Amino acid sequence: MSDAPELVSVPDYERAAARRLSTRADAYISGGAADELSLRDNPRSWDRWALVPRVLTGTVEPSLEVTLLGRARPHPLLIAPTAFARLTDPDGEEAIARGAALTGTTYCVPTLAGVAPDALARAVPDCARWLQLYVFADRDVTRDAIATAARSGYEALVVTADRPVVGVRDRERRHDVRRGTAAAPDPAGGLGGATPRDFSRLIDPSLSWADLERIVADSPLPVLLKGVLRPDDARRAVDHGCAGVIVSNHGGRQLDSVLAAPEALAPIVDAVGDRCDVLVDGGVRRGTDVLKALALGARATLIGRPALWGLTVAGGDGVRAVIALLLAELRVALALAGAPAAAAVDRDLVVPAPWAWR
Amino acid sequence: MSDAPELVSVPDYERAAARRLSTRADAYISGGAADELSLRDNPRSWDRWALVPRVLTGTVEPSLEVTLLGRARPHPLLIAPTAFARLTDPDGEEAIARGAALTGTTYCVPTLAGVAPDALARAVPDCARWLQLYVFADRDVTRDAIATAARSGYEALVVTADRPVVGVRDRERRHDVRRGTAAAPDPAGGLGGATPRDFSRLIDPSLSWADLERIVADSPLPVLLKGVLRPDDARRAVDHGCAGVIVSNHGGRQLDSVLAAPEALAPIVDAVGDRCDVLVDGGVRRGTDVLKALALGARATLIGRPALWGLTVAGGDGVRAVIALLLAELRVALALAGAPAAAAVDRDLVVPAPWAWR
Amino acid sequence: MSDAPELVSVPDYERAAARRLSTRADAYISGGAADELSLRDNPRSWDRWALVPRVLTGTVEPSLEVTLLGRARPHPLLIAPTAFARLTDPDGEEAIARGAALTGTTYCVPTLAGVAPDALARAVPDCARWLQLYVFADRDVTRDAIATAARSGYEALVVTADRPVVGVRDRERRHDVRRGTAAAPDPAGGLGGATPRDFSRLIDPSLSWADLERIVADSPLPVLLKGVLRPDDARRAVDHGCAGVIVSNHGGRQLDSVLAAPEALAPIVDAVGDRCDVLVDGGVRRGTDVLKALALGARATLIGRPALWGLTVAGGDGVRAVIALLLAELRVALALAGAPAAAAVDRDLVVPAPWAWR
Amino acid sequence: MSDAPELVSVPDYERAAARRLSTRADAYISGGAADELSLRDNPRSWDRWALVPRVLTGTVEPSLEVTLLGRARPHPLLIAPTAFARLTDPDGEEAIARGAALTGTTYCVPTLAGVAPDALARAVPDCARWLQLYVFADRDVTRDAIATAARSGYEALVVTADRPVVGVRDRERRHDVRRGTAAAPDPAGGLGGATPRDFSRLIDPSLSWADLERIVADSPLPVLLKGVLRPDDARRAVDHGCAGVIVSNHGGRQLDSVLAAPEALAPIVDAVGDRCDVLVDGGVRRGTDVLKALALGARATLIGRPALWGLTVAGGDGVRAVIALLLAELRVALALAGAPAAAAVDRDLVVPAPWAWR
Repeated sequence: MSDAPELVSVPDYERAAARRLSTRADAYISGGAADELSLRDNPRSWDRWALVPRVLTGTVEPSLEVTLLGRARPHPLLIAPTAFARLTDPDGEEAIARGAALTGTTYCVPTLAGVAPDALARAVPDCARWLQLYVFADRDVTRDAIATAARSGYEALVVTADRPVVGVRDRERRHDVRRGTAAAPDPAGGLGGATPRDFSRLIDPSLSWADLERIVADSPLPVLLKGVLRPDDARRAVDHGCAGVIVSNHGGRQLDSVLAAPEALAPIVDAVGDRCDVLVDGGVRRGTDVLKALALGARATLIGRPALWGLTVAGGDGVRAVIALLLAELRVALALAGAPAAAAVDRDLVVPAPWAWR
Repeated sequence: MSDAPELVSVPDYERAAARRLSTRADAYISGGAADELSLRDNPRSWDRWALVPRVLTGTVEPSLEVTLLGRARPHPLLIAPTAFARLTDPDGEEAIARGAALTGTTYCVPTLAGVAPDALARAVPDCARWLQLYVFADRDVTRDAIATAARSGYEALVVTADRPVVGVRDRERRHDVRRGTAAAPDPAGGLGGATPRDFSRLIDPSLSWADLERIVADSPLPVLLKGVLRPDDARRAVDHGCAGVIVSNHGGRQLDSVLAAPEALAPIVDAVGDRCDVLVDGGVRRGTDVLKALALGARATLIGRPALWGLTVAGGDGVRAVIALLLAELRVALALAGAPAAAAVDRDLVVPAPWAWR
Repeated sequence: MSDAPELVSVPDYERAAARRLSTRADAYISGGAADELSLRDNPRSWDRWALVPRVLTGTVEPSLEVTLLGRARPHPLLIAPTAFARLTDPDGEEAIARGAALTGTTYCVPTLAGVAPDALARAVPDCARWLQLYVFADRDVTRDAIATAARSGYEALVVTADRPVVGVRDRERRHDVRRGTAAAPDPAGGLGGATPRDFSRLIDPSLSWADLERIVADSPLPVLLKGVLRPDDARRAVDHGCAGVIVSNHGGRQLDSVLAAPEALAPIVDAVGDRCDVLVDGGVRRGTDVLKALALGARATLIGRPALWGLTVAGGDGVRAVIALLLAELRVALALAGAPAAAAVDRDLVVPAPWAWR
Repeated sequence: MSDAPELVSVPDYERAAARRLSTRADAYISGGAADELSLRDNPRSWDRWALVPRVLTGTVEPSLEVTLLGRARPHPLLIAPTAFARLTDPDGEEAIARGAALTGTTYCVPTLAGVAPDALARAVPDCARWLQLYVFADRDVTRDAIATAARSGYEALVVTADRPVVGVRDRERRHDVRRGTAAAPDPAGGLGGATPRDFSRLIDPSLSWADLERIVADSPLPVLLKGVLRPDDARRAVDHGCAGVIVSNHGGRQLDSVLAAPEALAPIVDAVGDRCDVLVDGGVRRGTDVLKALALGARATLIGRPALWGLTVAGGDGVRAVIALLLAELRVALALAGAPAAAAVDRDLVVPAPWAWR
């Protein structure tokens, strides 16, 4: 690196990671479902919204602090659960957790991890953690996972709703990712050495509202439902005891050509925003994207691939760098929009963009 | 083919077929009318609609079964009538019929076939068949065709409404397709050796509602009208005794820059959906396209070029593979959209996309 | 030319002409104003409208006949006035007139012609002619031109409203067209040898409604106003005695980024369609474009550049070929849209396209 | 330059300047914030509006004269404050001022200039000047600047509202512009030799409405607020004593993906147009852009980069040439739109464009 820095934005990390990843790992990490319409749309979807900044509000240093599930958090970013981090870094989830810990970021630890939830908790105890939960056909496994999570200091459970079956992953099939990931360092260490193929079989495709209710009843931890795109589903989630919903299209990896998160967000906030925390993920690449998510009513946003790109480029330090970069951009965005605090951004700051920018 | 499969989607078959087809055959099969606006728009038209999936519906294995003209069919796909299949495979319609039979797919056999309807029925008796009908100036020929169809186990007649004259086929003219197809193996075997030029002259350009009424009266089989884009025309079709309408712009081959099928579909369903079966074709390339068609109210969708691409790549097996692939994708799409059955997809699952994806 | 024809559409003629024209002539003929937004938009503007064809209307051979200014004309195409035809053909306007005569097309002869109006009338007496009129500062010249037109069998006067001054012609200036055209065969023969520079000075930039009224009063011929984009202006034109208005943005050569003709057309038809003939020009390249213009309420459409491309490729025969081609396409379009006659196309056949096709 | 002129439009100057600027200077002058969505959108934003010209208004030579802050000005163009003009011309602001003086253009002199406001006034006394004001943490500096401005014949103060902190300038960081500009000829001469880094620290990020009110109270000159995109902010500006607001997104250099000026303009004019002067800047490259700004209610438009491109190409003469070119285009645009005067363009002349032109 010369005097002028090369990695000044998340897109820079994306490009740098693409140069380092094997074709197979890149197919898994960067790929989406079918024609990848939603994959490509996700980052652009934020560009469909224009900011209408406010001036002279006298904001000096905007506060990034937000309240999530009743707890104060230093900022509104979380790391989304992404499987198979070991594809790009032998240290995988531990490295991500270290990057998260260094930046006060809550890490949504995936079920499909190379390390068991309790082992990760011991390895990086100072990282705020939520546990993402796939629900298994064998309900005892699920109950055990919940108990482990509670015991190991996880603060919440995130039940993934949008993966009853795996999406149409053309890019993965073209690069034979399933075989490839089986060959990677034990990708399901947390589940006692199961391969991803086994794993997929373990997931219960029949997950229903009744199951969710049972999980909420079984869990000493608050439960969020991830993968919600409909206000009626969000309402049902709250009715079934969820403390939050995560508006998400699974990074464009499941059903292709679905509604994008920013468009789904505001109606869901209108439906349940006063009864639970609404979070969002998908395509967040800029501080202005986070600001728009907040303006549209999200309490926080999750980033998935950006963390993996940081991980690929520089391990845990890369994760830290990517988050620091987004937080710096968010600070500037709040200041320039005249918003004194991430926790108090009103919807008025954003309007549908009059035209496509790209 | 290496370990990683190469043909994992319909677009893959399209590309593979393009490499195998002669320029002339490709001009006929892949070409459209005039500037080919509608041709190019058809596959994109489905992308103008976004899915809004439902979660936690507990759907394990969605049912693909639908009822068509009162009969249970295993799934909502049919093969559209496409002329001159022998341009790409010497076995043409028989091979298509075999692929259809292997997948429980109804084949809409074209008038402009290289084999007569009854001969095809004898060759592949286990294929569910409808007969596509051009109406001839000589009404006796039409009456004979209807009688043959009924006798040979065809289940319905499909009257093509949108080809009173042939469209402005610039690409065909540039590649002199008319001469080329005349040189191909007897393209109108079913009509006693007529060349396509002769054939075009036989079609009655003055086909009217009165003619349709006479056909319905003459026919022991249910009649569907294909090529309808207007609710008022759909209403008249039902008033004149049709058991179904097929919303279609003839694959972009007739009038260029017409309304696309997905946009025409819902208003037609609203007009006649409770009085007849509404089917749709045009640009269906993905399981999600089929799901959108169902959500917009179609009972089933027809595929034209995808079947020909499968035929080009691997004969009847290719046809089977393309259909199997679409059905697998449809199964995933239904599961991910939380729809338990193809026969019960509600319109709520789809909204106009907030922006162009491509 | 091999067996397969190469020139099967207007775009083909455009490409062929571009290969033959000098850079300078091409800059004049194919260029537009400023950023050429309207120039490029004109042909695309028709693509913003979708046809919704009607079926089974029993139309055998649709009639192309229309009534213009009370006279029956064999079809709804006219040739727009385009200056400096001699840039591409030494025979210029006479050749165009011959092509027009061979196809029953009315030719709107330009003021800025290489031949005087009466001389052209003598040279090609069987061509139906209107005279396009720039109004000169010296009102006697204008009065003389009107008298000559009436004496020489011109059927109408077309007063150009949208050229009080010349547009911002960057492309022309880059290729120094003004000097170039002065060097071309006498470009203003009809005006006694004036150069275009002189000519531009002769035009009266202060043309007003009062002037128009005087012209109408002086003229034994019906007067049309060309270059109208506003309903209020169309209303005033009729109030001041015009027999017709021509909706036009001067081929994108005058004010850039103006409203396109198809969008301007229907409101103007609604305002004055029952009181005068409304014609339209701009970007017509296909029979479907003409059909859309008719559906939006135009009585006829003018073509400008397509005639010049035909002229460039094959002189008067090329003009004839281009018109024949468009009429053939229009015949197909009417038949496929189920419209029995060009004179009776209803607005219902066209809707704003749900999306951009290109 | 051959006989045919090469620099006939602002885009020509842009290209010519790009060839002459160092990569570093170009990064500063041509760059924007983050993904540069707003930077690229600004020039296109005017293309989202279509002109609907009026004909036969008898306009001979339209008047460009407008009234700004109660004073008659010969035309509605001003030069926007742009920092670091010495990056491209050693004579910087003085050269711009000379170009402005030659064309009767008001120059909005930047705080971040290579020459002090009073020195510039002495150097080019016949240039109409406003002083752009960043508000410093040390309020005495601000008060001194105001006093100097008043003493040196500046006619107004322009308080920049949209730069409490600097935007996310990826392109500048990639080319290490901050270091580069420090190395350029004294970039903050007007502030006694401060470097830009120092300078950024001097700006008060907490600027509030109370501060603005104090500035208005302190100032013998009328005050305009620059960087307003919201009607409510415009209203507050007037309530706090501003004589005008400048609708601007800071050339796409501050917050990325904000509302574009043309879309923000009309609602602001509706809110305060009768109580103060509303001006606009951002992406003006054509006379038609100025006409649209006037039609949407702006009293005048500022140009930033176009002046710098002119400066880069030919110093003060280049600035003069660029302005002369835009005024010539504006004259043509007014004539062709049938508008007799820049001061009386009604909103009726412009409508949202039915489609994207580019």
